[in-house]
Amino acid sequence: MTPPSPRPTRSLLISTGDPAGIGPEICFKALKELRPIPGLQLIPVGDLGTLSAAAELAGYAPGLSPLASPGEAGDPEGSCEILQVEPEEAFERSRVSAPAGRQAYRILETCSRFALSGQAAGLVTCPISKEALARAGYGSLGHTEILGRLAGVASVETVFCVRELKIFFLTRHLSLGEALSRVKRQNILDALVRMNRVLPSLGVEDPRLGVAGLNPHCGDGGLFGREEIEEIAPAVAEARARGIQAVGPIGADSVFHLGLEGRFDAVLSLYHDQGHIAAKTHDFFGTVTLSLGLPYLRTSVDHGTGFDIAWIGKANPESLVRAVGLAAQILGRSNAPAERSGGRT
Amino acid sequence: MTPPSPRPTRSLLISTGDPAGIGPEICFKALKELRPIPGLQLIPVGDLGTLSAAAELAGYAPGLSPLASPGEAGDPEGSCEILQVEPEEAFERSRVSAPAGRQAYRILETCSRFALSGQAAGLVTCPISKEALARAGYGSLGHTEILGRLAGVASVETVFCVRELKIFFLTRHLSLGEALSRVKRQNILDALVRMNRVLPSLGVEDPRLGVAGLNPHCGDGGLFGREEIEEIAPAVAEARARGIQAVGPIGADSVFHLGLEGRFDAVLSLYHDQGHIAAKTHDFFGTVTLSLGLPYLRTSVDHGTGFDIAWIGKANPESLVRAVGLAAQILGRSNAPAERSGGRT
Repeated sequence: MTPPSPRPTRSLLISTGDPAGIGPEICFKALKELRPIPGLQLIPVGDLGTLSAAAELAGYAPGLSPLASPGEAGDPEGSCEILQVEPEEAFERSRVSAPAGRQAYRILETCSRFALSGQAAGLVTCPISKEALARAGYGSLGHTEILGRLAGVASVETVFCVRELKIFFLTRHLSLGEALSRVKRQNILDALVRMNRVLPSLGVEDPRLGVAGLNPHCGDGGLFGREEIEEIAPAVAEARARGIQAVGPIGADSVFHLGLEGRFDAVLSLYHDQGHIAAKTHDFFGTVTLSLGLPYLRTSVDHGTGFDIAWIGKANPESLVRAVGLAAQILGRSNAPAERSGGRT
Repeated sequence: MTPPSPRPTRSLLISTGDPAGIGPEICFKALKELRPIPGLQLIPVGDLGTLSAAAELAGYAPGLSPLASPGEAGDPEGSCEILQVEPEEAFERSRVSAPAGRQAYRILETCSRFALSGQAAGLVTCPISKEALARAGYGSLGHTEILGRLAGVASVETVFCVRELKIFFLTRHLSLGEALSRVKRQNILDALVRMNRVLPSLGVEDPRLGVAGLNPHCGDGGLFGREEIEEIAPAVAEARARGIQAVGPIGADSVFHLGLEGRFDAVLSLYHDQGHIAAKTHDFFGTVTLSLGLPYLRTSVDHGTGFDIAWIGKANPESLVRAVGLAAQILGRSNAPAERSGGRT
């Protein structure tokens, strides 16, 4: 057997997000913590002044060298190449402002452009402020929606990754009342079919899917709530009839625990907070989001801009470290099939 | 200063629950693990045959001596006194059955009688099976409801205890749709007033209360859901005007994490699964429930009868160990004010 040929080095962009928030700081703290990833160059995206200050705050030693495009990257030893996005206006640190929102948008636009052109293999995003973007005139768009629009993609799905578990959502940014009305057999079946189709591309073959219940104790046999009987169980039965390994409904206070224990590869959360409470109470900084549907790989931290603790050295880079790790893992898999592990670990 | 006089030894009953389930086994596993608690004798309640078999399964060395009432207890060294409740019928282990349900009820009745008479200081309960009780003809009553009825008490409140955090519930066994309709200003205010009144008796003076939001990101300023604006925030404001240290609404995926970090003494969960998902995903076996409103102290494990793993030595006693620990902590406080800690730790 010949050894696999060395993989070409690819670029993974790190959007440093709202420059007034904790993004730039956690970026360099994460770079300090992460060991070099063979075949992958991490490239922070932002302006040289902000990133230099953040690197200093984080105690990150290598000097920064600005690039105009990831194509110029050479991954020199002893220095860190960054993709330079000069701000049009000055902004104040640690607070919501239109200029910082505008700069966050420009950074994201730059990242999107290079990811769409294939010059970068993927994108890891630090937090932006919806309020700052609104003040900057971008309406009330979320991070994922912006990337979807820039890519001309109508629908992007968000998946939570906590340890080995993936959490998918039936609905996300709807009121709980509205989300309740979407707990319908066909929607659940569609979600299970989608999960089953998508998970192999994330390295999970023959995925085992858990489905959360909606009501306390899954309604206790119809005593309080009938969605389990009328909508969820039939959807799971139909999915199984199609060969999908789905199990449920399982009480929402157990299903995520069972998933984290390894009983499921993925859990379908029936509304936003179900999966969010589980993931973030289990491991607040260890939760990473993964976008599905963009033409490139994107992972993200799952916390906010932290204006209250920004630029004083207190921010925790854990979520970003994991977001980079997940992106590297997925890219590593898709780049070098020979190195794939044979099965679940 | 004279040393405090030795406290009289009090009895804490352990209802071993459905004898076909994991209750008897976790009882003796917990007794093995727990160090003697000064001034408190733990007395398992059940039948001698079942408890002897469970003690053997658990590798619990001391012999068992049956008592007819806790008043006879002498806490002899080298043996474990149990309160004997002879079953009327034989039952099969590891499965739901009417005879086991009947025996579980008889055990509970015995515990309730001695706790109500003051012969026991309190009660820690192992799981019962609702289905076994129903088959035994007791309807579909829950554990807490049975104890409430036996005590002649109309309403008993359940509080979750995870580490130092207490979780209160606005509603519990209602469908999610019905629970949503109870998220009203007055109900929330009433709950906060009750929490503020009750927590000092659990050793928390001047409690700091967090209130969960209902919708994703608390509705994001009314974008998806208006309960935060119209019901929750006004209730919190009114509570604060009355001198209660309430904060909220806070996104449900953060508020429990913040509470566990020590930012709050207690969190108000707006529906069953909110607090349940948080507590049980954070620490599945470490969650203990505490009943408020009974004329005696009662704590309980927060898991089921585990018929699938019963009587094979695999059951985890962690939740029971914590339930006993919490009961001892609360009784210790109320028995010996001189030993109270000065404040929060």
